[in-house]
Amino acid sequence: MADLTDEDLIAVRRDVHRRAEPAWREFHTTSRIVDAVERIGVDRLAVGPEAYPASECRGVPSEDELATWRERAASAGARADVLDLTAGGETGAVAVLERGDGPVVGYRADIDALFQAESTAPNHEPAAEGFASAHPDVMHACGHDAHVAVALGVLAAVKASEFSGTLKVFFQPAEEPGHGARAMAASRHLDDVDHLLGIHVGLDHPHGTVVAGATEILAKARFEATFSGRPAHAGKAPNEGRDAVQALAAAVRSLSAIPRHADGMTRINVGTVAGGTEHNVVPAEAHLEGEVRGETTDLVEWMRSQVRDRLEAAAAMHGCDVRYETVTDAPRADSDPELAETVYAAARATDGVDTPRERGAFGASDDYSHLMRAVQTAGGTATYAIVGTDHPTGHHTATFDVDEETIPLAVDLVCDAIGRLDQSGRADER
Amino acid sequence: MADLTDEDLIAVRRDVHRRAEPAWREFHTTSRIVDAVERIGVDRLAVGPEAYPASECRGVPSEDELATWRERAASAGARADVLDLTAGGETGAVAVLERGDGPVVGYRADIDALFQAESTAPNHEPAAEGFASAHPDVMHACGHDAHVAVALGVLAAVKASEFSGTLKVFFQPAEEPGHGARAMAASRHLDDVDHLLGIHVGLDHPHGTVVAGATEILAKARFEATFSGRPAHAGKAPNEGRDAVQALAAAVRSLSAIPRHADGMTRINVGTVAGGTEHNVVPAEAHLEGEVRGETTDLVEWMRSQVRDRLEAAAAMHGCDVRYETVTDAPRADSDPELAETVYAAARATDGVDTPRERGAFGASDDYSHLMRAVQTAGGTATYAIVGTDHPTGHHTATFDVDEETIPLAVDLVCDAIGRLDQSGRADER
Amino acid sequence: MADLTDEDLIAVRRDVHRRAEPAWREFHTTSRIVDAVERIGVDRLAVGPEAYPASECRGVPSEDELATWRERAASAGARADVLDLTAGGETGAVAVLERGDGPVVGYRADIDALFQAESTAPNHEPAAEGFASAHPDVMHACGHDAHVAVALGVLAAVKASEFSGTLKVFFQPAEEPGHGARAMAASRHLDDVDHLLGIHVGLDHPHGTVVAGATEILAKARFEATFSGRPAHAGKAPNEGRDAVQALAAAVRSLSAIPRHADGMTRINVGTVAGGTEHNVVPAEAHLEGEVRGETTDLVEWMRSQVRDRLEAAAAMHGCDVRYETVTDAPRADSDPELAETVYAAARATDGVDTPRERGAFGASDDYSHLMRAVQTAGGTATYAIVGTDHPTGHHTATFDVDEETIPLAVDLVCDAIGRLDQSGRADER
Amino acid sequence: MADLTDEDLIAVRRDVHRRAEPAWREFHTTSRIVDAVERIGVDRLAVGPEAYPASECRGVPSEDELATWRERAASAGARADVLDLTAGGETGAVAVLERGDGPVVGYRADIDALFQAESTAPNHEPAAEGFASAHPDVMHACGHDAHVAVALGVLAAVKASEFSGTLKVFFQPAEEPGHGARAMAASRHLDDVDHLLGIHVGLDHPHGTVVAGATEILAKARFEATFSGRPAHAGKAPNEGRDAVQALAAAVRSLSAIPRHADGMTRINVGTVAGGTEHNVVPAEAHLEGEVRGETTDLVEWMRSQVRDRLEAAAAMHGCDVRYETVTDAPRADSDPELAETVYAAARATDGVDTPRERGAFGASDDYSHLMRAVQTAGGTATYAIVGTDHPTGHHTATFDVDEETIPLAVDLVCDAIGRLDQSGRADER
Repeated sequence: MADLTDEDLIAVRRDVHRRAEPAWREFHTTSRIVDAVERIGVDRLAVGPEAYPASECRGVPSEDELATWRERAASAGARADVLDLTAGGETGAVAVLERGDGPVVGYRADIDALFQAESTAPNHEPAAEGFASAHPDVMHACGHDAHVAVALGVLAAVKASEFSGTLKVFFQPAEEPGHGARAMAASRHLDDVDHLLGIHVGLDHPHGTVVAGATEILAKARFEATFSGRPAHAGKAPNEGRDAVQALAAAVRSLSAIPRHADGMTRINVGTVAGGTEHNVVPAEAHLEGEVRGETTDLVEWMRSQVRDRLEAAAAMHGCDVRYETVTDAPRADSDPELAETVYAAARATDGVDTPRERGAFGASDDYSHLMRAVQTAGGTATYAIVGTDHPTGHHTATFDVDEETIPLAVDLVCDAIGRLDQSGRADER
Repeated sequence: MADLTDEDLIAVRRDVHRRAEPAWREFHTTSRIVDAVERIGVDRLAVGPEAYPASECRGVPSEDELATWRERAASAGARADVLDLTAGGETGAVAVLERGDGPVVGYRADIDALFQAESTAPNHEPAAEGFASAHPDVMHACGHDAHVAVALGVLAAVKASEFSGTLKVFFQPAEEPGHGARAMAASRHLDDVDHLLGIHVGLDHPHGTVVAGATEILAKARFEATFSGRPAHAGKAPNEGRDAVQALAAAVRSLSAIPRHADGMTRINVGTVAGGTEHNVVPAEAHLEGEVRGETTDLVEWMRSQVRDRLEAAAAMHGCDVRYETVTDAPRADSDPELAETVYAAARATDGVDTPRERGAFGASDDYSHLMRAVQTAGGTATYAIVGTDHPTGHHTATFDVDEETIPLAVDLVCDAIGRLDQSGRADER
Repeated sequence: MADLTDEDLIAVRRDVHRRAEPAWREFHTTSRIVDAVERIGVDRLAVGPEAYPASECRGVPSEDELATWRERAASAGARADVLDLTAGGETGAVAVLERGDGPVVGYRADIDALFQAESTAPNHEPAAEGFASAHPDVMHACGHDAHVAVALGVLAAVKASEFSGTLKVFFQPAEEPGHGARAMAASRHLDDVDHLLGIHVGLDHPHGTVVAGATEILAKARFEATFSGRPAHAGKAPNEGRDAVQALAAAVRSLSAIPRHADGMTRINVGTVAGGTEHNVVPAEAHLEGEVRGETTDLVEWMRSQVRDRLEAAAAMHGCDVRYETVTDAPRADSDPELAETVYAAARATDGVDTPRERGAFGASDDYSHLMRAVQTAGGTATYAIVGTDHPTGHHTATFDVDEETIPLAVDLVCDAIGRLDQSGRADER
Repeated sequence: MADLTDEDLIAVRRDVHRRAEPAWREFHTTSRIVDAVERIGVDRLAVGPEAYPASECRGVPSEDELATWRERAASAGARADVLDLTAGGETGAVAVLERGDGPVVGYRADIDALFQAESTAPNHEPAAEGFASAHPDVMHACGHDAHVAVALGVLAAVKASEFSGTLKVFFQPAEEPGHGARAMAASRHLDDVDHLLGIHVGLDHPHGTVVAGATEILAKARFEATFSGRPAHAGKAPNEGRDAVQALAAAVRSLSAIPRHADGMTRINVGTVAGGTEHNVVPAEAHLEGEVRGETTDLVEWMRSQVRDRLEAAAAMHGCDVRYETVTDAPRADSDPELAETVYAAARATDGVDTPRERGAFGASDDYSHLMRAVQTAGGTATYAIVGTDHPTGHHTATFDVDEETIPLAVDLVCDAIGRLDQSGRADER
């Protein structure tokens, strides 16, 4: 099959958007990817547990939850073979084009949606055009739908090009909770990658801007805590309770009071809370989930130790116990300058890129940093490019959307960069 | 049918315990009651919406939730006719024995369970004996299962007695959330009640103790609040968020800081909290449920105004809005002394009552106070008796249980009291 | 000297009011008392350390502070001999009338003012009449000025009466911080007291009401805590600080969240806070003072353990240490019914008492409970009477004032009661 | 008088250190400066209100407080004429050397100490050497003592040099509270300054390091707030109080929860708190002081609006009022690159400077930014240099100290830079 047209790519993006699936539940999305990859034609295709070890998957939801999403995917037309392969939640795939002795280039796209209800407002384009999420409270509010489309476009375009090396496209699940890249980093497919490329759309950069090599991909740790107290009748015996919701509230206040750090930027967020059973029972259980980030891995370590101390004190304050766990973390990473330079050259040569920049702070976290570190540690180079797009509101909000013209631009950019790597690879050999 | 044996009563109690159903979902329980009442034989039986106006029901769960519980009830053997009648969540019943011109006596039993996971420990008798709740996170942890058994025992025993008046037994749903009595108080069946009796088992009184007339049934109000903020990416734009979980935590801390009141006892509890969607999104929604109580209706009014002010300030503190609602309330009530005296006389005459007391503080709330007030306002008298039982742990805890010997004792007590009312009623007429 | 006129008593009260002196600094007040007692003429007069052991005095202020108040007293005309005797802060006195073999009656009056700025509003009578406190931020806002006047009136009136026993009037310092009665309870003058009487004016009872025997004089404990952290430059190194003010704030919030107790009324107050040195330094020290009360001594014990646990957790939450101390405490006490009955009889016989009541809840604490317990333990009886007075605003507020007509009424009441004790004492002997 | 020796400079530093005086109370310090300046010999010397308009002084303490410090200064030997001139708290001075038509160079030194108790530990050199602060709770913990010594050294050395322009040395009071530079910026002495130089010692840079032009001198605002509630008897009527200390605690917790900002670094500190009068009175007044900082003036504006909103909500939460005031603020400032380059050239030429750096982030605030902005706005250039020194612990801590070898190094550096400005000024004229 030949190159995918712009319309094809937009259709994929909209289909994936409409079937927004959260982490480890990307059944329909994976099926759609497999379909498209097969139509493009590749040399190898590893799906789900063929792509990475299932043993490295954390945070996989319950069998009931998986079943619900498998059913949704099936009724939306997902392929039975893909559903079978990924049944345990190990979604995603690795597609490989082998074209010769040139360099081994990896390209990564994350594919999951997140828990955010999508706007139904008529000025929200996905709603107006009828491709808003069909799944309540789940939405592609970070642009991973576009990432899927770009990755498929790259695969098709590179196949149609004179590229002489190996291209491996990693369709990675579960970026939002920070679990997927850790698993994918254990994939044997990554071992021989010379150059790892990835892009993120948007991040407050307009369409036409490309930041070739993001630096300061923030270190991050995600944590959970459960407070356990003792229930009591709120009217008859309030003093006999050990109030887990009070402990939770004290913890939330205390976590937000972790001071700023002189060594650089930090972040703290308590993203979810839940506790108690009845209005008239002193609550005996409460749970929270949150994250810390920092400019360096050390700063995240410091934040983690602050979080632990404060959670323990909040529990003690109300006679409760607390179980605390770091669910996942991602290291600080920076793009390699020489690889960024190649992407920068590509940006300057790509139609529609009016503001090419060589470097720029990422300013957020992405578990892609695990993959970058894995490749860098093995002697390869990695970069993360930001491809600007006009997004009406911020990432992770109900009215997030991407400018679809950015998709073919990104395909062109990445293909140009891959071509340059191929050239310089051959030049190196000489 | 003749008198119910002690074994019959215990079997009913265990069956109801095992099929613990929360407010407005007492489908199996109502079916079981209807069955037993029909076997006893009464003059009139009004089920669900026949017993009270559906328009007065607040807090009825969603159709999905009702369907889940109807299915559970059906598969546990609930009668199709009862399920049909109560399908909309209007559970419970009023059973009427008409025996002559004597006084009209009302007897009320509440029938719902609450959201509390039941212990599976081997020293928890319902677990050991195999009648622990079959429903996850729902449990008869307040003794309403025993209340159902006692009410049926009273009905059977009065029928077998020489009682010459009218007995109306009100099987009231939804006491725990405080919704049921409000609806039942609007029942036309209550209009002609001369004397209203009710009992609560336990309340930290041992088996053998009876408090004939509880005073200080606390006024209470149950409230809910929802904080609405603005989501934002916790790493990229924390300052753009309006953090509803921080508002929630500030509110929880602030509510617990409502000062004690010089005029009497008060209570405050935040029983449940929930908020946020993802660990990495500044949470835009958060919800809490709680209650206030007080020795007087005025104290509850004062607490409510404090709650409202503090919730609003907590929202403002974090740039959020808050919707606040008093879901339900119950007034302060006290037993009428003359009616309490009758029950006290009965207590002294009842086998097994070793510690009869004429009056005592209830110290908790019960939406039964709505029914008491309704009868008292119409010129009748009402009392609430506490029938002690040995309960290993406090009400509303996972290991709450009753001493089943208390059930026949309570039946005897109530029947004796009804007999005395009949006598004195006839004496009055002379 | 004969009986003191009403005008004399009011003059004393106004003089004491104007020279309001806080705990252990009642130099002018003691001098004024000694003057008046000498003019009345008694058999024995023990001043300051002659009245009770100095070793039992806690919370005595610094020598500098004492010197400041001695100077104030001296320049207002206090006697040099009294200033010498009380120089170390041991103020107050015990005056003894020995008239025969009748019963030994003790009468206690507390004499200290408190730290409260007095209103200068023209409708505040002490301001309008020119006897508002001359001392900034110190005021008789609890009525102890009236207590002094009443005690002197009682002494004069009993002297002029036919009383046949011994009367000991205890002018007790330092009631407000709760230190004085503890010291006075160690006085040998208390050993042979058969009946201890005391009154408190006001407490929300109007002029004309007398509660003969207060019950429920609340147990109380007063505490202090100091948090120690680590200072740091708030701009350069906020993370290096250990913020004692954050620990303090967490503690204040947490203390107010101590739940209500099922066993009875409790109270918690953080009355003063102070911390930090500069706006731009992370604060390394913070201090608080507060109190807990309860219907029983056990409840106060429970509150104290809650306070300790929460202070420790608040410190841990912010990496600080905390030193915690119970500065003083007072037990629960109740008036003896038989002695209360005597006072009740006196109340019914006293002109101007229109609402005599036998018993009533005190509803507050008073370190007088130490003296009551000491007498009761030694086999005597004690009562605390409330003598109503019209006070425009609550105790401990800037516009508190007493109705001066209450002073002679209280003198009459106490003298009548002492006469009755004398009579019944003689009757007993027969 | 000739050049000051290193020993002279160290003696000045130690003398100033020992007589540490806080803002607007630098009486002895100013006297010492005037003495030294007179001994050096200058063309003009403006002291206190001669140096800047008294009307621009904010935050001047009470007359009593000023008197206390004037007395301390007098008894430590301060000159009567200086005490007279500065009696109202307008301390500091401007010394002017007029040597010809060359450029007008300003040099600023801040002179105040801060409220921090100094360590008495034997390993704290000022304690060991006997020049620790003689004033309780006040200390030179930021290095301004060294700044005074360096400024005098510069004055003497420039006088002894061939400098052909005008040198104005601004001895600025009240930097710590952020008041002094605002007043000094209104000085007519500043109007004709072509180049403004200033240094700060330390800031975590070791001896031998010089950062020629500090960038990112943070914007800052200092605020105060007073909460007013209603007092009440904590035992009798807790519900009648409006608790200002609870409002304060809620505010402290809430302020620390102001989120991090995506646009750059921010800071928040509540540095001092005080509230309440008695342990047993619901506190009716509470006060706090704090500061916010930010990488930009906009960020500080944002922080200020957050602070205001949260203080108001905290007051409302507890039924209190709040008065909120921004006491002082300072803008963001950056060193001019060309002037920094001159200082950088000087640093490379100065003996003892082993690590010259052209630019670096200041990372803190300094009200010097007002002076920089004033000069820059008038068309001149300004720079702020950091002169490293080995300081054992952080600024604003009890054991802060400077390496005295840094003092002569800084004198050499500044003189070299002034010489270069003179040269280039003359070059410009040609």
